[in-house]
Amino acid sequence: MPRPVWYWEDFKAGEVIEFGEKHVSRDEIIEFASEFDPQPFHLSEEAGKASILGGLCASGWHSCAMLMRMMCDEYMLDSSSMGAPGTDEVRWQKPVYVDDILRVRRTVLESRPSNSRPQVGLTRLRHELINRKGEVVLVMTGWILFGRRISGEAA
Amino acid sequence: MPRPVWYWEDFKAGEVIEFGEKHVSRDEIIEFASEFDPQPFHLSEEAGKASILGGLCASGWHSCAMLMRMMCDEYMLDSSSMGAPGTDEVRWQKPVYVDDILRVRRTVLESRPSNSRPQVGLTRLRHELINRKGEVVLVMTGWILFGRRISGEAA
Repeated sequence: MPRPVWYWEDFKAGEVIEFGEKHVSRDEIIEFASEFDPQPFHLSEEAGKASILGGLCASGWHSCAMLMRMMCDEYMLDSSSMGAPGTDEVRWQKPVYVDDILRVRRTVLESRPSNSRPQVGLTRLRHELINRKGEVVLVMTGWILFGRRISGEAA
Repeated sequence: MPRPVWYWEDFKAGEVIEFGEKHVSRDEIIEFASEFDPQPFHLSEEAGKASILGGLCASGWHSCAMLMRMMCDEYMLDSSSMGAPGTDEVRWQKPVYVDDILRVRRTVLESRPSNSRPQVGLTRLRHELINRKGEVVLVMTGWILFGRRISGEAA
């Protein structure tokens, strides 16, 4: 395994970055929904239009999963991440429609060392998924555990 | 479309039910993770064992998606559900391992009519995903919007 690029110390409270570009296809919306969330408005344009969502749109859990993949590609796989105990909030603020193109805005909210494990730190991050109109479609906030840089190692 | 079985009025605060039986296979853990959450501990037994998770285990988002499917099969698809604005918490309390068998415990926490839409009510539900040992592996809590029974219609 290569050494991580991003350790707990590298997430500085207040830091904001944007990354990613994910095109959402009709086929993947329907494929995910067929397996995990077969509500009519996630399966057909007709049912989407008849709903308060206004058109065929992705399952909220699909949006979370797409965000997770963008996080993995941008930094998680190059980090000392040890997983997450959960998320404190998930807000599906706008529907994600066919052919939307999504990017991510990540904000480091706060950071603290683990009380019980000196090699571990916790970072509270907010991730927003944003469409081409600049609308925030999803907000996800929660703590992630990262391994700390070994003391004495160059930062 | 058939008439819904479950309207907003049918979710009574305090009600607890259990349902579902979902076997989690090694292949589906790896398939979901390969697409959405390719962290090593979701892709191989070896990396899972080397992590604090103790073995190959499902992405937390996969657990959420599996829960959603069980909710759909049990009641959502037969309900007047209009979607959800988000969840107030998601807790991945224990890893979900290969060959786990999961069931759901649903608790109706509270219920209120919509302020702006007389045909709509909101219900706050807690869903827990429980493994064969009786351990709660996932807790998800949030509001769901349901259509109300049309007044004058038989309850």
